[in-house]
Amino acid sequence: MDTSPPCRIPSRCQVPTAVSSAAERRRGGRRARTAERATLSDPVDPQPRRRIPTYDLLDEGSLDRLAVHADWILDEIGVEVRGDEEARELFRSAGARVDGQRVRFAPGLARSLCSTAPAEFAMHGRHDRHTVRVGGCNVVFSPAYGSPFVSDLEGGRRYATLEDFENLVKLAYMTPWLQHSGGTVCEPVDVPVNKRHLDMVYAHLRWSTKPFMGGVTSPERAEDSIAMARIVFGSEFLETHCVIQGNINVNSPLVFDEVMTGALKAYARANQGNVISPFIIGGAMGPVTQPALIAQAHAETMVGIALAQLVRPGSPVVYGNFLTTMDLRSGAPTFGSPEAVLSTYAVGQLARQLGLPLRAGGHYTASKVADAQAMVESADAMGAAVYAGAHFVHQAAGWLEGGLVTGYEKFMMDIDHLGMLVRRMQGLVVDDDSLAADGYREAGPGVAHLGTAHTLAHFAEANFTPDLIDTASFEQWTEDGALDMQQRANVRWKRMLADYEPPDIDPGIDAELLAFLDDRKAAVPDAWY
Amino acid sequence: MDTSPPCRIPSRCQVPTAVSSAAERRRGGRRARTAERATLSDPVDPQPRRRIPTYDLLDEGSLDRLAVHADWILDEIGVEVRGDEEARELFRSAGARVDGQRVRFAPGLARSLCSTAPAEFAMHGRHDRHTVRVGGCNVVFSPAYGSPFVSDLEGGRRYATLEDFENLVKLAYMTPWLQHSGGTVCEPVDVPVNKRHLDMVYAHLRWSTKPFMGGVTSPERAEDSIAMARIVFGSEFLETHCVIQGNINVNSPLVFDEVMTGALKAYARANQGNVISPFIIGGAMGPVTQPALIAQAHAETMVGIALAQLVRPGSPVVYGNFLTTMDLRSGAPTFGSPEAVLSTYAVGQLARQLGLPLRAGGHYTASKVADAQAMVESADAMGAAVYAGAHFVHQAAGWLEGGLVTGYEKFMMDIDHLGMLVRRMQGLVVDDDSLAADGYREAGPGVAHLGTAHTLAHFAEANFTPDLIDTASFEQWTEDGALDMQQRANVRWKRMLADYEPPDIDPGIDAELLAFLDDRKAAVPDAWY
Repeated sequence: MDTSPPCRIPSRCQVPTAVSSAAERRRGGRRARTAERATLSDPVDPQPRRRIPTYDLLDEGSLDRLAVHADWILDEIGVEVRGDEEARELFRSAGARVDGQRVRFAPGLARSLCSTAPAEFAMHGRHDRHTVRVGGCNVVFSPAYGSPFVSDLEGGRRYATLEDFENLVKLAYMTPWLQHSGGTVCEPVDVPVNKRHLDMVYAHLRWSTKPFMGGVTSPERAEDSIAMARIVFGSEFLETHCVIQGNINVNSPLVFDEVMTGALKAYARANQGNVISPFIIGGAMGPVTQPALIAQAHAETMVGIALAQLVRPGSPVVYGNFLTTMDLRSGAPTFGSPEAVLSTYAVGQLARQLGLPLRAGGHYTASKVADAQAMVESADAMGAAVYAGAHFVHQAAGWLEGGLVTGYEKFMMDIDHLGMLVRRMQGLVVDDDSLAADGYREAGPGVAHLGTAHTLAHFAEANFTPDLIDTASFEQWTEDGALDMQQRANVRWKRMLADYEPPDIDPGIDAELLAFLDDRKAAVPDAWY
Repeated sequence: MDTSPPCRIPSRCQVPTAVSSAAERRRGGRRARTAERATLSDPVDPQPRRRIPTYDLLDEGSLDRLAVHADWILDEIGVEVRGDEEARELFRSAGARVDGQRVRFAPGLARSLCSTAPAEFAMHGRHDRHTVRVGGCNVVFSPAYGSPFVSDLEGGRRYATLEDFENLVKLAYMTPWLQHSGGTVCEPVDVPVNKRHLDMVYAHLRWSTKPFMGGVTSPERAEDSIAMARIVFGSEFLETHCVIQGNINVNSPLVFDEVMTGALKAYARANQGNVISPFIIGGAMGPVTQPALIAQAHAETMVGIALAQLVRPGSPVVYGNFLTTMDLRSGAPTFGSPEAVLSTYAVGQLARQLGLPLRAGGHYTASKVADAQAMVESADAMGAAVYAGAHFVHQAAGWLEGGLVTGYEKFMMDIDHLGMLVRRMQGLVVDDDSLAADGYREAGPGVAHLGTAHTLAHFAEANFTPDLIDTASFEQWTEDGALDMQQRANVRWKRMLADYEPPDIDPGIDAELLAFLDDRKAAVPDAWY
């Protein structure tokens, strides 16, 4: 397992492998059939790679205390594994002490059970160019997850529908700054609760070719999701390749219920991915002091990863995390707060101790609208994720109102900011070329560098150019309608959706997917809870 | 000189000395008279102190190349010192090669000339509780500087007036998150150009008690500013205590003109502070590649500091910096850009090599309004300053539109964010108390921590509570008028100004200040250019 910190020096990073090998392509028979015809000639979207060091907030002593405290929690308090005898039995056979629903782990046991998880793995898209690597120097950004509402500037805040879901999948497909299609990018509340996963997985598979997440709200829905992935990628391919993930939250504090362990086991059994994320608001699902929360989350995440590894050693996991704070005036959750930012760094250090891919961050905010609050909170939360060394950043686009809303304008602002962060992750290359000695010889004191040969040679590529950042003069900006960022984002997402072109799919595969969907929908009556 | 990085461990930091010693208070006779009557009983506003490590972006090799390149620039290209024979003679006598206006420095010379500058110094406010330390683990935030315009939500964008100037001084005085009153917080364009400095310095001295900056647009205006400080603090006190600073920009690339060197020399001769800041937009005042700019700025800043030290060894300086980027579509300056953020970290590393207090960052944005763009750019730029180890953060409140505008609502958003950053700088304390073992013993798996003894004991203090961040439910927020952050900030600054109470001042001192001001205004006709 590679426990070295993310790379300061590019040569220490693995060779880019966003495209699977030719051999892998050959093996993926059905998958190859479903890929667009242009596969071989399409340019490969480069996956973001970190070339900057991580930020280590804590000294070794403090970090060790957190790890020791996590072990103490697991040993003395333990976790409850509710309603899942199989999971308890797996833990018991691995050496844990099981007493009723309570499962306790001797110090070091949970960590050692995580040791079979890969430090890095490939996650395959329906199209080769959207295959990504998770872990190492590679970074994956994924859109918002789980909101019952959507909002846009004209329509306001409203319940999300399947049309919204498809719109968000399409937007995520089109932007180069999201490498993953996400999961429940919003809740399509116009579809019965027990059938939503079918439409959601179909949308990811049909309207995008990026990796995605499947259903987790029951083991059966997870199995359905995996079955649909098998239709597209082939059963054999799935045995050895990750194409789908489950987003597994823990019932913090310290509880795993059978819904979540059931879904987790389904994905692990299929050798597919699990992202294990305790969602802890300090003061509610854990103590109000951040060091305790960090240790608790570390304990909970290790238990989830251990279960995935006991079900199927080597199955791909992401060490996830979602710690946040509470407005102590009202008890409402807060995001991008200083305490949450600090915790993100510490969590990154713990993930590096385990040598596992880290999920952290997101463009989080409590704001109801895509205003200044939305972006100050989001920028702070995402900056922390970048320097903490996050490999998998969920909730990276669209999040508003503490996750209750996925906002169309916010989505556009967030992906623009992701582009800026990706540029930041490239760091500075100090070499003869970037030091521009000839530029100084040509310009000299008091002479502008606008026309030097060095400036002309580098002008087009020197700086990242975001889409939504307005730098026009006040006069020009006024003439253009004096639009603020939210209004500009509104124009942009509508134009982007209008420009969307669906990726090709093999008509036979598509028919098979739709038949599966119809069968499963017909098999049970609608349920709305 | 302390060249160690900012402190990970609080005990490595100096003992807090925000209040000058009793002996210092006794020495400052006139100053004591001008302080508010409540001096001794007033609580001391704690100055922000860093307890988190800095972020070192560059490895040693890259950092050394930048320092070597700065030396190469100074040796081969040199700087032009225009219209100031005294400055050139000081450099010549210190070993520089002077050829006409061109001054060249052998490698290592500029750095060695900086070595007499203090690593840390006290900057005295008119009131003891507003005395701050610059350098070491101490951080000072100062408001926006130099904008000809102001804006607010109702009044829109308009030329600034002396009333705006006084309003901004009052707001800066009232907030605990700015420890410095700034300088030209906006240009009072209703006052003649050649007399503005008198009204501005009077406003800082009369309506605030925080440290401030004086005039720099001519040596005489700098002298006037220092003379006014002497009236308040006493001539003898100024000989050994810093109470005022000059904000010295370089005419990049590589030019020092007599206006700036004249002001710099005036402050240095008086043993007062100089903040030396090359303002370089890549592609215009320097090459378009950031490593070149960083080296150039390092060279320019060292020359400015060297001049201050040659005029008066030991006079307090700040190693300043303002590098930013250009929108390559239009040539407009951009702020909070990825390239500028990266440069900030590198500049911080160079300042630590010199062991000098660092000016970096600011709540920068190109946005015309206090919208999402304004805060995403600002948050990114300020986050970089914090992790780069900035000691003195100028332009920390109010900046809009690339510095052309100081915005009232933006000012309020920025100071709110400063509070969040100050909390972040405190880091995480991992100890028995924060690990909350008893909380887990009390709550156990599945039990909310809201009511545990640990939570109740820590609830009030656990999290920082910003003013302008709205965390209400959508329903509550709607009932409250559905105000976005800009609208909430509008309410807040008006309330704050309404609550302003001027600090006391000795009537004799005030009369003397006003007499000086009248004399100087009467001495010359108004000039409007």
